[in-house]
Amino acid sequence: MSSSAESVVVDTTESPRARLKPVPVSDVKLTDAFWAPRLRINHEFTLPTQYQLLEETGRIDNFRAAAGKDPAQYGRSDIDRFVRSGAYYNDSDVYKWLEAASWALATRRDPELEQMVGTAVTEIEAAQEPDGYLDTYFTGEHRAERWTNLRDLHELYCGGHLIQAAVAHHRVTGSKQLLNVACRLADHIDHVFGPQPGQREGTSGHEEIEMALVELARETGVDRYRKLARFFVEMRGKGYAGGDEYHQDHRAFHAFDRMVGHAVRAVYLNAGAADLCLEGEGDAYLSALERLWRNMTTCQMYVTGGIGSRYRGEAFGYDYELPNRRAYAETCAAIGSVMWNWRMLALSGDARYADLIETMLYNGVLVGVSLDGRSYFYQNPLANDGDHRREPWFGCACCPPNIARMLASLPGYVYGVSDEGLWVHLYVEGEATATLSDGRTLTVSQRTRYPWDGRIEIRVGTPGPYSLFLRVPAWCEDGATLRVNEAPYGGELAPGAYVEVQRDWREGDCATLDLPMPARRVACHPYVPNNAGRVALMRGPLVYCAEQIDNPDCALEDLAISIDAPLGADWQPDLLGGVCVLEGTAVAAPPSAAWADRLYHSTQPATRRAQGHSLPFTAMPYYAWANREAGAMRVWLPVHRA
Amino acid sequence: MSSSAESVVVDTTESPRARLKPVPVSDVKLTDAFWAPRLRINHEFTLPTQYQLLEETGRIDNFRAAAGKDPAQYGRSDIDRFVRSGAYYNDSDVYKWLEAASWALATRRDPELEQMVGTAVTEIEAAQEPDGYLDTYFTGEHRAERWTNLRDLHELYCGGHLIQAAVAHHRVTGSKQLLNVACRLADHIDHVFGPQPGQREGTSGHEEIEMALVELARETGVDRYRKLARFFVEMRGKGYAGGDEYHQDHRAFHAFDRMVGHAVRAVYLNAGAADLCLEGEGDAYLSALERLWRNMTTCQMYVTGGIGSRYRGEAFGYDYELPNRRAYAETCAAIGSVMWNWRMLALSGDARYADLIETMLYNGVLVGVSLDGRSYFYQNPLANDGDHRREPWFGCACCPPNIARMLASLPGYVYGVSDEGLWVHLYVEGEATATLSDGRTLTVSQRTRYPWDGRIEIRVGTPGPYSLFLRVPAWCEDGATLRVNEAPYGGELAPGAYVEVQRDWREGDCATLDLPMPARRVACHPYVPNNAGRVALMRGPLVYCAEQIDNPDCALEDLAISIDAPLGADWQPDLLGGVCVLEGTAVAAPPSAAWADRLYHSTQPATRRAQGHSLPFTAMPYYAWANREAGAMRVWLPVHRA
Repeated sequence: MSSSAESVVVDTTESPRARLKPVPVSDVKLTDAFWAPRLRINHEFTLPTQYQLLEETGRIDNFRAAAGKDPAQYGRSDIDRFVRSGAYYNDSDVYKWLEAASWALATRRDPELEQMVGTAVTEIEAAQEPDGYLDTYFTGEHRAERWTNLRDLHELYCGGHLIQAAVAHHRVTGSKQLLNVACRLADHIDHVFGPQPGQREGTSGHEEIEMALVELARETGVDRYRKLARFFVEMRGKGYAGGDEYHQDHRAFHAFDRMVGHAVRAVYLNAGAADLCLEGEGDAYLSALERLWRNMTTCQMYVTGGIGSRYRGEAFGYDYELPNRRAYAETCAAIGSVMWNWRMLALSGDARYADLIETMLYNGVLVGVSLDGRSYFYQNPLANDGDHRREPWFGCACCPPNIARMLASLPGYVYGVSDEGLWVHLYVEGEATATLSDGRTLTVSQRTRYPWDGRIEIRVGTPGPYSLFLRVPAWCEDGATLRVNEAPYGGELAPGAYVEVQRDWREGDCATLDLPMPARRVACHPYVPNNAGRVALMRGPLVYCAEQIDNPDCALEDLAISIDAPLGADWQPDLLGGVCVLEGTAVAAPPSAAWADRLYHSTQPATRRAQGHSLPFTAMPYYAWANREAGAMRVWLPVHRA
Repeated sequence: MSSSAESVVVDTTESPRARLKPVPVSDVKLTDAFWAPRLRINHEFTLPTQYQLLEETGRIDNFRAAAGKDPAQYGRSDIDRFVRSGAYYNDSDVYKWLEAASWALATRRDPELEQMVGTAVTEIEAAQEPDGYLDTYFTGEHRAERWTNLRDLHELYCGGHLIQAAVAHHRVTGSKQLLNVACRLADHIDHVFGPQPGQREGTSGHEEIEMALVELARETGVDRYRKLARFFVEMRGKGYAGGDEYHQDHRAFHAFDRMVGHAVRAVYLNAGAADLCLEGEGDAYLSALERLWRNMTTCQMYVTGGIGSRYRGEAFGYDYELPNRRAYAETCAAIGSVMWNWRMLALSGDARYADLIETMLYNGVLVGVSLDGRSYFYQNPLANDGDHRREPWFGCACCPPNIARMLASLPGYVYGVSDEGLWVHLYVEGEATATLSDGRTLTVSQRTRYPWDGRIEIRVGTPGPYSLFLRVPAWCEDGATLRVNEAPYGGELAPGAYVEVQRDWREGDCATLDLPMPARRVACHPYVPNNAGRVALMRGPLVYCAEQIDNPDCALEDLAISIDAPLGADWQPDLLGGVCVLEGTAVAAPPSAAWADRLYHSTQPATRRAQGHSLPFTAMPYYAWANREAGAMRVWLPVHRA
């Protein structure tokens, strides 16, 4: 069923400002031991159980209610009629699941999943009104409230998720059934909103519609949708979405200078604005996006790539406001940031965006789902005492299907193409086929144990003159080497940049990149007060953490690590699905006796911490925490200075 | 009008478990240069303008609406009838103001203020229903909702504030007009709630009624009110107030082990439980209170005495969760903590409670009002970049009248009496008259420039054998001396304890306490991550802070102070109403160049901060910050180690 040229996640193939073009999900086979099992669990367990939850929680029944379906038709003798239930934004969970399932089907056909997809599509289609309107909350008792509260009621947000699902469904299945629904809704929205006489001004309190409409324009060739997306971005700062920072409505988009407000909304908006840049929008948006990116990455981002540190408003905070225990760092915000950064990468080919995507995927995103694919984190603290556990579902269930679509679409984020050749953004064992703009089709394979080992063999299957662009990650500050077949690469291998290997390739040629992966102690900017005197441990792209279960002899808050003692890496195939743990010597350094029963000390004790005894310590990848018995966890560990 | 023996704030005179008895507000004259001007501003400016705001915002009209008053009677031709407006808890602002005004009248008669008090009392009285019910929100359209939502709608909370106001009004004016209203309401509540057949179980989502009912029992001798207070405390943990930590309803009170949930509610509840202990409640409550106090003071309290660090829920957080910029530290919570600690002090005579009262009054409470008495802080951060400013009023206006009643009742917190003699809790220049339990009346005067100077001369005006109990503050860790007349006191002067000076006093005898007040660098427990490597400056009971305006040559975040360089104190009579500033040498230590444009560093730079240049710095008392032009402020300053 899959049309392999079409299952691209973000279709920049024809985008005038795109440096990079995409490679379809279906053309990238991941066969590694890290991601492939996660995608398989996502496909085989997560997606079916989420569908079941969508049914059990009435989220699909809401479409049946809107369509006036007869429960008897579904063998439901327990009810007289379907009644719309749940929060006003619940339609979006169905749409996100549908998008996720579509991407999953690009990797592998699955009749049972196709059946679920078919049911969902049919129910959605039936719920659409003759004028194209579709939102089950505003069908029935809330009908009169349509488009009356763009700030709070997520109407355009739900519409955006329908459109994204429809585009994915069309690209993967070739069916126009849902795409037609999406187009009718988009046409309806385009009829209601716009600058013409008789149309309304407005913009959404929860952004999402912007990137959806650009993608719909790409998919259908209907440029009106792109213009409507631009209209919604241009409407920011006029008060239609509250006029405040929370809704990114405090000023015109081109004047944005720092990340503010609800984090998911902020990065979704930025993704939409970046899409508009790809389609030829001028430099004012791009300048704003670069300012926002700089603010986010230098002042408001956790070392995991997590963003939106503040519980209140699920929001960005002050610069350098990055508390660890009270980190919000919503899983959806990290996912939205991947989406935004992917578009920045497509615009620029700049490795800093790919570096950040890698950081987020391995840490801030992946931590959001349990190893067994059955439970989720909404918030992602970097320190906890054992009370924060993943849950199977949420009343506001945005994160679970969002993780599912991120994982299902992951193959589409591994490669890119440009006129010059193939770009390798992520290192994952597997095979891929990519088509250059001149029509040549390249095949390539990766052999690597990444992220556990930094050696990557990239073997080309297609002869001819073209370039391979290989990312030297920013984390690999020292010692990266590259050989092509047996010959050392003569050029520079700058960290945080792509190295272009340009040659007349023969079939079977192999580029071997070696990225040394010593464990690293990472320090934090001194303006982040809560990380003073602490370090985080990383190895390759992975952030590590200490869990109490691995360090039973010392309260984690007292576990201080030396600034310079050796840190070893040990592969443990049977632990947590196979992980490389970090091991070293630490010091148990509880508060000195002077602190007993007091919080403040009028005259500072000579040392705040007692001279402690040495003990071994073990750190685990952050993404894998809280998959065993409940206990404390810390990413940032105090430094012990002998 | 004042009956001088009766204007006590918490009447433990007959309380069976009280170690200390109170001294009436009217019998303590403050003539100092620190508090007396604040109380005068409170009386002359704050109270009249707050009354005007109560009128302008419809808070008093709500009582007129409930009574069905005719607007024409008030010359209000603009409206046909009074309509209840504003939040469901707005009655409480009127009651708190009335309590504040009553205490103010205990210090000084004032016909204009008496007129306002009289109007408020009359309007309140007229709004009471025949059955004793009184809450303007539940009169009219919400009548059917009475007592249906104890968790959220603050019905018992408002009732509690009415009772407190009525007791104060009766004690100060001798009038029973409002007390009778309060008794009718209390009788009504006592009719509705209780363990008897036909009565309801329940407890308030916002505590306050508990301490009010105990006080009403003390004032009227009606023991039913005390029993009802106990009933409401006993009902905690049964789910009537939500069953959650936010409402302190997660378990039975006697099983409480740490401070949780909404901070104001928590300390109000504790004050009520402590009142019950004073009246003879058993040890289970006292044990819980001691656990709670220990948790609060050793794990959850700012150096200013501020509590409730978390914005979300205005609540206590994790242990050691004490962010500075995002400190909530509501002014009302510090005030409620003074109330709770005052009752613990009355129970025990233990100076640690008086020490904490002092810390809170000079810092966490006083910071809540501007020097001119015209604007207020709701939240009290310990670091800010200039966007946090006091406001003249709030939609939820709990703090302004709460500060007013705290300041107006302050004279009642200076002294206490026991069978042995007179206790001096706070050092404030002025005079007082106190009656011992054997009926002897003592007069005493204080001469001191406290808190700017630690020398206090206490002169007795009454001969005879009795004790003076003088508090040696915990902050005075070293060097306190005491002379009686010219003779050095021979006993120990332990910090954080009362020294009992027992003798046969002659009229004119003088005890001179000298509390050295060097500037202190205060360190914080290492479990508070955001204060690592930082110190706060204190002198005497005052917490200091750096404000940008006084330190124009260095961004405050870069101002590092030496761990051991001299700190000088300089009296500046014309600055901020007269303050002693701290001065010393600091280092401008911006982040080292390695941090340019990055938040994390894979390999830690040798120093996080650049080697900076020396410059002078000036610190101001924290209570006085934000009384000049807007700018940054920091309590906790990085330490520079040469």
